[in-house]
Amino acid sequence: MNSHPFDQALRLQHSDLRVGQFSGQTSSDYWNMVGPFGGATAAIVLQSVLQHPDLLGVPVALTVNFAAALEAGEFEVQATPVRTNRSTQHWTVHITQNGAINTTATAFTAARRETWGASDAPMPQAPRPSDVERMSIGPHGVAWLAQYEMRPISGSIPSVWDGSGSHSESRLWLRDAQARPLDYTSLMAMSDMFYPRVWLRRATVVPAGTVSITTYFHADAAQIAKVGSGYLLGQAHGQRFNNGYFDQSAHLWSEAGDLLATSNQIVYYKE
Amino acid sequence: MNSHPFDQALRLQHSDLRVGQFSGQTSSDYWNMVGPFGGATAAIVLQSVLQHPDLLGVPVALTVNFAAALEAGEFEVQATPVRTNRSTQHWTVHITQNGAINTTATAFTAARRETWGASDAPMPQAPRPSDVERMSIGPHGVAWLAQYEMRPISGSIPSVWDGSGSHSESRLWLRDAQARPLDYTSLMAMSDMFYPRVWLRRATVVPAGTVSITTYFHADAAQIAKVGSGYLLGQAHGQRFNNGYFDQSAHLWSEAGDLLATSNQIVYYKE
Repeated sequence: MNSHPFDQALRLQHSDLRVGQFSGQTSSDYWNMVGPFGGATAAIVLQSVLQHPDLLGVPVALTVNFAAALEAGEFEVQATPVRTNRSTQHWTVHITQNGAINTTATAFTAARRETWGASDAPMPQAPRPSDVERMSIGPHGVAWLAQYEMRPISGSIPSVWDGSGSHSESRLWLRDAQARPLDYTSLMAMSDMFYPRVWLRRATVVPAGTVSITTYFHADAAQIAKVGSGYLLGQAHGQRFNNGYFDQSAHLWSEAGDLLATSNQIVYYKE
Repeated sequence: MNSHPFDQALRLQHSDLRVGQFSGQTSSDYWNMVGPFGGATAAIVLQSVLQHPDLLGVPVALTVNFAAALEAGEFEVQATPVRTNRSTQHWTVHITQNGAINTTATAFTAARRETWGASDAPMPQAPRPSDVERMSIGPHGVAWLAQYEMRPISGSIPSVWDGSGSHSESRLWLRDAQARPLDYTSLMAMSDMFYPRVWLRRATVVPAGTVSITTYFHADAAQIAKVGSGYLLGQAHGQRFNNGYFDQSAHLWSEAGDLLATSNQIVYYKE
């Protein structure tokens, strides 16, 4: 049994009663402030699809909606392939606790074939990971942060909350703190790695939480395997902040410069 | 009864049997090559939410997955509010024909309140709409294109398919061809307005089709009403094209410069 905390967090038990129904346990290692780190929840959603006996292909798109916080403890996941075509498959997934839905999702998987390709989002210039200081997580930091090694290049969390913010872009190197080869589930979690843009934009802490995240996977399984436990370069920025919601757009490149995933989320904020 | 073709395309009949179940008819006015224009289908999904008797708030996020082409004729839509909180609501929606699901969706609606705001995606410089020539739709063009007035500023559909493409960005002014005040449903449709980026990037026509689209609405109802039947500035670009799929990122501003919606889609392509 793999003892990496992420694999433990992803552990699902397939029900004997219904195909695609799983039970799992929230992980204290990936706990955020009032519930699990959203990226871990999204990874669990994806894990249920990957462990479904009828799976076709690899993940291409995943949308996860956080309808209510998960409580610490057991949860149920139901993954359903609602439409299977020749080389593509559409999924709906939901997580429930005590019979109430707290998370909904849709996923798209496909058998990818080699085609012409190009990238119009080249990796930005960045110093090497070893030349960037690792972010230290204070003893009062939330648990999930300690599971990642983050080396912020620019746009780190403000150290002074004086309302002086002027932009919403962050750039950092990141990988699992305890080495683990990249796969679709960890890439999904990492696409939700960025702290709320509104904190940076305003240099002010306000209540904020992701409502919905959509991640597109641009790499096939071999391209992801090539990354191993290497660093990813992550970049995120907000586009519009208005009347309680903002969007956050993120990119994740391998150190070799391959754009592995693009991700967008809509985030609630107060005041 | 409103006789605008878009309102006709959106017309849904609420079932007497089940709350949130509607029937509708595909529209020949919004027909694409082998099925309805995806933006019209996405607008129908949103319409089912907006006409649900339990609706709370206004649309903030919508993800629509095109699992199979709709056939011409009748379809059923089921909209379900799976979680209603104090000021937010999460929805699942699907469209079926002859009992088979062809479209899945999740939506998020919320009562928006005035807060601090900012835009980090200013409208790009552009000539006025009246200074840009209207795109002509040939007699053999697909039907839905004739429902829109498009004034391409840059990145128009290549006129020569010689493989000479070098970028994937298009910018245009657009509005309904027959005047209609902007609302969430038409904004949703317009967020799917852009032709496949792979055609521009390669200056080559290959089979391509949207698999999933996610649109975030950044404007509340009053801000949308202010637009009336004015032009929107639309911009779209691809980020990565790899092994059969590319993503397409779109922005829609009002002529006054307000970012009304951001949208992303993942698109299948061949070869």
